[in-house]
Amino acid sequence: MSDIQFNKIALIGIGLIGSSIARAIKEKHLAKEVAISTRSTLTLQRAQELELGTFYTESALECVSDADLVIVSVPVGASGAVAAEIAAGLKPGAILTDVGSTKSSVINQMLPHVPAGVHPVAGTEHSGPDAGFASLFEGRWCILTPIAGTPEGEIMRLRHFWETLGSRVDTMDAEHHDKVLAIVSHLPHIIAYNIVGTAEDLETVTESEVIKYSASGFRDFTRLAASDPVMWRDVCLHNKDAILEMLARFSEDLAYLQRAIRWGEGDKLFDLFTRTRAIRRSIVEAGQDTAEPDFGRHAKQ
Amino acid sequence: MSDIQFNKIALIGIGLIGSSIARAIKEKHLAKEVAISTRSTLTLQRAQELELGTFYTESALECVSDADLVIVSVPVGASGAVAAEIAAGLKPGAILTDVGSTKSSVINQMLPHVPAGVHPVAGTEHSGPDAGFASLFEGRWCILTPIAGTPEGEIMRLRHFWETLGSRVDTMDAEHHDKVLAIVSHLPHIIAYNIVGTAEDLETVTESEVIKYSASGFRDFTRLAASDPVMWRDVCLHNKDAILEMLARFSEDLAYLQRAIRWGEGDKLFDLFTRTRAIRRSIVEAGQDTAEPDFGRHAKQ
Repeated sequence: MSDIQFNKIALIGIGLIGSSIARAIKEKHLAKEVAISTRSTLTLQRAQELELGTFYTESALECVSDADLVIVSVPVGASGAVAAEIAAGLKPGAILTDVGSTKSSVINQMLPHVPAGVHPVAGTEHSGPDAGFASLFEGRWCILTPIAGTPEGEIMRLRHFWETLGSRVDTMDAEHHDKVLAIVSHLPHIIAYNIVGTAEDLETVTESEVIKYSASGFRDFTRLAASDPVMWRDVCLHNKDAILEMLARFSEDLAYLQRAIRWGEGDKLFDLFTRTRAIRRSIVEAGQDTAEPDFGRHAKQ
Repeated sequence: MSDIQFNKIALIGIGLIGSSIARAIKEKHLAKEVAISTRSTLTLQRAQELELGTFYTESALECVSDADLVIVSVPVGASGAVAAEIAAGLKPGAILTDVGSTKSSVINQMLPHVPAGVHPVAGTEHSGPDAGFASLFEGRWCILTPIAGTPEGEIMRLRHFWETLGSRVDTMDAEHHDKVLAIVSHLPHIIAYNIVGTAEDLETVTESEVIKYSASGFRDFTRLAASDPVMWRDVCLHNKDAILEMLARFSEDLAYLQRAIRWGEGDKLFDLFTRTRAIRRSIVEAGQDTAEPDFGRHAKQ
């Protein structure tokens, strides 16, 4: 279906994102060799059983040997340790990229270890862990945040790779990326975790009532609040500045809303509840979501 | 398919909930006559074109005449006015109920107008406005909050009516209902409205970026934040006490989380992000949601 784009690709980490990349590479024949590394013996065995690659090792250093493209897919808190481990094995001319949801922190962690001649191009696949497998990247946005000095040709190669996986690709600087992701992804997850925690701690409403009557709204939040705790802990710690800025604004706005409720200022509530509809319309028009209510859940009941 | 349960049912308000009830009554032949009333001439015409009832009027008073069951489906802020209007026309022995999402306030608004001999049984269909039509109530919880003194037989009649529509029915007191709904429905909507407003007001991230990169998380929130502004303004104003209590707890918890992020307390984050997963599992096990990621949105892209 497609042509070989890289002689050897090394995948460090083989979770949802890593394994989806592996499947796509295999399906589209994008590399002659695919080396896979993870620190978990069991996960590595499973990757081998699934035939996701051509070579399997618990050593990230061994994995990157002779690779033209290295894709790091680990929780962002582990980026620095991975970079330190693989630094000595990176081939000159190799493209080094990652799929973490925070970029400035990952770059700061990895860059000191990257030897001269290696081209680091940070990238994120921002649709998060709650998606499918084979077509995980199709129609999704992939944002590249290239380090200053990365040759344009290498950026183009990586862009082409992601486009072959079905992604739409954009480029921006790491700091801006982190602010964008803070509002479209990180803050919604933090809020969701928080409200589910609040619900669980109530004395007046039992946990079983919360579960039983979980309506549209709350159950969407519980889905987000069931995401990988390690990944999200790391995101919070590693995109701290952008998240704290967004949280401060969110809390200010919520205090305003709370005050409007307390003082019965219906016009303020109505104004906010009206203008937020416009954003929804634009998202549906941009093809980022369907207008269908309830996403087919209802039909199944 | 079913038997006639009421000679005449009056529907005050013919929006999503009211029209869904009308369709279900028709489909299941639950009443000989269905009178429909709404203040909007256009909406009333549309209801007539769709043949949702057997009699159409802009006068709620005329609508309830001789009805055995009166179902009020208007924004909760309008309940008092509707009750005042229909009071003189309510037949002795009639069951008066409503589907508003807040109960104490609706009861307080309507009860002073209810003549002796009429049986008020407040009920809520809590799945909200973002659902389908024909099968809107199937598999959903309907909570009845009967007024003290309502005869058990009348409560059973209404329970049977909702069960015929496919709902599972529970009974609780109005005050408790309002707390349950505040956490499972009202707070999530308020939070969603708030975060979409925060995103719209950012200077560092443009609105078009928010729309373009709207990922899992944010786009779920925009769906909630596109709900009917009048309905939600009224909910906020009429379930004030329960909502303010939940909001205060939510904000406290969020401040704790924010502090943990600021001070890099990964263990606190990890603890919260882990315990919230249990609630999600219980909701899926209770059949309140599917475990399927992304609800089929992905497949369509």
